[in-house]
Amino acid sequence: MEIKGSNPDFLFQSVTLIGIGLIGSSIARAIKKTEYIVKNLVLTDADKLVRTKAKKLGLADSVEDNLCAAVVGADCVILCTPIGNYAEIMESISGHLKPGCIVSDVGSVKRAPITDMSPYIPENVHFVPGHPIAGTEKSGPESGFAELFDGRYWLLTPPVGTNRKAVKKMRCLFEAIGAMVEEMDPDYHDKVLALTSHLPHLIAYTIVGTADDLEDQTQADVIRFSASGFRDFTRLAGSNPIMWRDIFLNNREAVLEMLQRFSEDLTALQRAIRWGEADTLEGLFTRTREIRRGVIDAKQEVPPSANKSR
Amino acid sequence: MEIKGSNPDFLFQSVTLIGIGLIGSSIARAIKKTEYIVKNLVLTDADKLVRTKAKKLGLADSVEDNLCAAVVGADCVILCTPIGNYAEIMESISGHLKPGCIVSDVGSVKRAPITDMSPYIPENVHFVPGHPIAGTEKSGPESGFAELFDGRYWLLTPPVGTNRKAVKKMRCLFEAIGAMVEEMDPDYHDKVLALTSHLPHLIAYTIVGTADDLEDQTQADVIRFSASGFRDFTRLAGSNPIMWRDIFLNNREAVLEMLQRFSEDLTALQRAIRWGEADTLEGLFTRTREIRRGVIDAKQEVPPSANKSR
Repeated sequence: MEIKGSNPDFLFQSVTLIGIGLIGSSIARAIKKTEYIVKNLVLTDADKLVRTKAKKLGLADSVEDNLCAAVVGADCVILCTPIGNYAEIMESISGHLKPGCIVSDVGSVKRAPITDMSPYIPENVHFVPGHPIAGTEKSGPESGFAELFDGRYWLLTPPVGTNRKAVKKMRCLFEAIGAMVEEMDPDYHDKVLALTSHLPHLIAYTIVGTADDLEDQTQADVIRFSASGFRDFTRLAGSNPIMWRDIFLNNREAVLEMLQRFSEDLTALQRAIRWGEADTLEGLFTRTREIRRGVIDAKQEVPPSANKSR
Repeated sequence: MEIKGSNPDFLFQSVTLIGIGLIGSSIARAIKKTEYIVKNLVLTDADKLVRTKAKKLGLADSVEDNLCAAVVGADCVILCTPIGNYAEIMESISGHLKPGCIVSDVGSVKRAPITDMSPYIPENVHFVPGHPIAGTEKSGPESGFAELFDGRYWLLTPPVGTNRKAVKKMRCLFEAIGAMVEEMDPDYHDKVLALTSHLPHLIAYTIVGTADDLEDQTQADVIRFSASGFRDFTRLAGSNPIMWRDIFLNNREAVLEMLQRFSEDLTALQRAIRWGEADTLEGLFTRTREIRRGVIDAKQEVPPSANKSR
């Protein structure tokens, strides 16, 4: 690791990212692009091949093989692995964290990580869980890009009583790499994300799986003629399997509740089709246009050129 | 209507498009961009405002107010309206079609139009139903563009015994405006499209409707944080309500069958989440990645820059 003196011009002297996938590598790229934010950036990953790629790509000041060595001296440690690994990682690094260090994460679920990680957070370490609403269906260190967080929300869900200075520093970091930062209650976060993200992915995985069960010729034609809606679902269903497995296992209640509401609504629509209820169908289809309008007004419909990955 | 002499260099002397929405206006634009394909292009639409827009946009050689007058002398008439209007339109124009005229359509369902329209097709008129697998969530004559069909499939489902020369002429027309033309059995078409297009739209309408029923604050946050999957569903659910109402009413059996399969698969996944079956989830999520790969290999994943609308 390069030895440097402390420089007050930097927001953080040393930041460590654990996990160098799409999100981790994008944070690394964005940090390296931004001057006077992080003096020393360290990466580590459990997968040797991933570490080798990260070194080749020159994503950080150093790439550490050893998890505990990677966090020694860090002012900030961000977990960028699937949620299922959080507790084990925290247990390992807990004794190596410097007093005053801020621990954060990027998981799509926020209550479960708080429950899993809190027991391992030392008294003199701050915990500021976070979630960037950004991503693509791609995985791995080669898929990341520095602009991934531009104009995207980054939600922070600090537990009650968290040091405000620590929250503010994390806000500065994520704003510096382009995100719009908001604070939110973790349970409310999990409920909203169950509908905006987890249920859509669950449905996409299901329908693509349904296609996979068709006889060969039909399946081949489904792929050929996918341009009419199905294609969008395959994009969602092409996302990282381990990450998504962990999301569903860790946001079980909220996902099952939203799924129940969705199933009831789908059954009602199924009935309307069976009985030829034209007005019911037209009524719903007209109402949903308004929500689409809301998404466009909220500027969450990015022009594709603004996002390399789509 | 401009009077012109017959010119053998053109594929068609006169083509009439009925309905000037996204698809109709895109066909018009593509035809006008292509030399020696259609000498005289006529448009008509039941909506006066739409006709006025079409005139202002200069989409054709003439825009006719009267439906029957619009088809007089045409070598080819293409219905580009919602499917629910087909029978009535055919009944009206039937007596005004020139012998040898080819009638086609662009509907997303193919069996129902054949059943509805065939009784009104005169003996000396050819019927070549078609369906371009192309579109956006936008509607109206101002939303169309000439490149909409570039590299897209255009499926023809001519009834058994249809004049082969007529089928060939339609193939030439659609290939000339950029499409890849294939022939297909109408029932098979309806089954494949039920899964690739109709079910995805039905699901998107449902989940966006589910969001619409949430309390105000949650709904507002669902819209704000829509970037994580939900946004793609709102795009599908922003499509033309009348067109989609007619699609579901006219492809009822195939949609209900695919919906049944999907619901069974979703219930299985729901159970896996409830009981924490990590392997079941990971197994499905890994399997669906292969289908995504197939879609990319089939070149149905357009780079967004190739399509203005996304």
